[in-house]
Amino acid sequence: MKDTYEKTVISKATIDRLPLYFRNLRLSQEGGIEIISSEELGRRLGITPEQIRKDLASFGQFGKKGVGYYIKELISNIGKILGLDNNWHLAVIGVGHLGWALANYSNFDSLGFKLVAMFDTDPNRIGQCIKGIPVSNLNRLKEVMQEQTIHIGIIAVPEMYAQEVADQLVAAGVRGIWNFAPLKIKVPDTVRVINEDLSVGLSSLSFYLARQTQIR
Amino acid sequence: MKDTYEKTVISKATIDRLPLYFRNLRLSQEGGIEIISSEELGRRLGITPEQIRKDLASFGQFGKKGVGYYIKELISNIGKILGLDNNWHLAVIGVGHLGWALANYSNFDSLGFKLVAMFDTDPNRIGQCIKGIPVSNLNRLKEVMQEQTIHIGIIAVPEMYAQEVADQLVAAGVRGIWNFAPLKIKVPDTVRVINEDLSVGLSSLSFYLARQTQIR
Repeated sequence: MKDTYEKTVISKATIDRLPLYFRNLRLSQEGGIEIISSEELGRRLGITPEQIRKDLASFGQFGKKGVGYYIKELISNIGKILGLDNNWHLAVIGVGHLGWALANYSNFDSLGFKLVAMFDTDPNRIGQCIKGIPVSNLNRLKEVMQEQTIHIGIIAVPEMYAQEVADQLVAAGVRGIWNFAPLKIKVPDTVRVINEDLSVGLSSLSFYLARQTQIR
Repeated sequence: MKDTYEKTVISKATIDRLPLYFRNLRLSQEGGIEIISSEELGRRLGITPEQIRKDLASFGQFGKKGVGYYIKELISNIGKILGLDNNWHLAVIGVGHLGWALANYSNFDSLGFKLVAMFDTDPNRIGQCIKGIPVSNLNRLKEVMQEQTIHIGIIAVPEMYAQEVADQLVAAGVRGIWNFAPLKIKVPDTVRVINEDLSVGLSSLSFYLARQTQIR
């Protein structure tokens, strides 16, 4: 299967929908469902069944016509496509409220991500533990990263420090950055960045509510 | 313009991209840029210029051929389309680390959202203030909502309490729910729900890193 999807050009929109499929299929599985049609999955996600069939067909043949998708198999395959079988090691930089919440977020564990380090500059924070992992002084970033592999750095520091932290993560050899600071950080092409903007979800909700207001 | 887009059927994918456009245009504006081409905007977002032109054309004529989009005008128009001019009132339910971080998230203010109430059941939390807003006892939800309009409830409680809180929000007359609990909550059709799953961003990052690994 690896061969199939490596040769295919996949749109960013499709990639962004895969975690949504993954998440919803897991919820369905927890609800005891074993087989799901593209129509039902589409209804749950607000995506057309055609789009779902097209997205999943980019990666191989997962469904059976007239029956649907076998959920267990589909979850395993999407997991592989998403690379969740790599057991990525995470570090949280900036253990304020957001960083603390992220470090505690149980969904990450269930997807195979592993928190291995946390960093802050606040002496009151340094030494505190989450899941048995202590908060280290940020000035020990490179040192800690040499002791243990960190694939992904999660930036949860205030905006004014985000670029500096990104530079330190890059220098320490991180592969990917998940950035919560409302700022476009600059990194070399070899490092992947996903910018998370929490206002996107809230703005979508605003859109739907505004249209309800106008229509009623 | 309202007429134009009320009569158009807009895909969910387009709606989901609007806040991304809005956010990026605001960053460009803060960087002193006044005009942007669909090519440049596309490059920044990883979306094709054709897709951007198609998305924005669903709502009206915002650009000038061969020149680009006037950023200020486009921001204002997308803001109206997203309904951000409604000055939605927000309440956060569950003021743990995530709820606290959300209540403090400055991007919401800059988009015109206003935090008006917070609720928790923890006696140590009740009475604490963020931005001058006190945390109220959750059992006062209906009462507080009668005193002041709350349009959107943000659920940041543990999964096991999420449905109960959703029911209370619905009973108290909330219009929309932004749900951070990893659970599909059930609400009447008249209430809009956006489920936020923080693992989606991290999963996308995993996808890109896994492909780098395979390709190199």
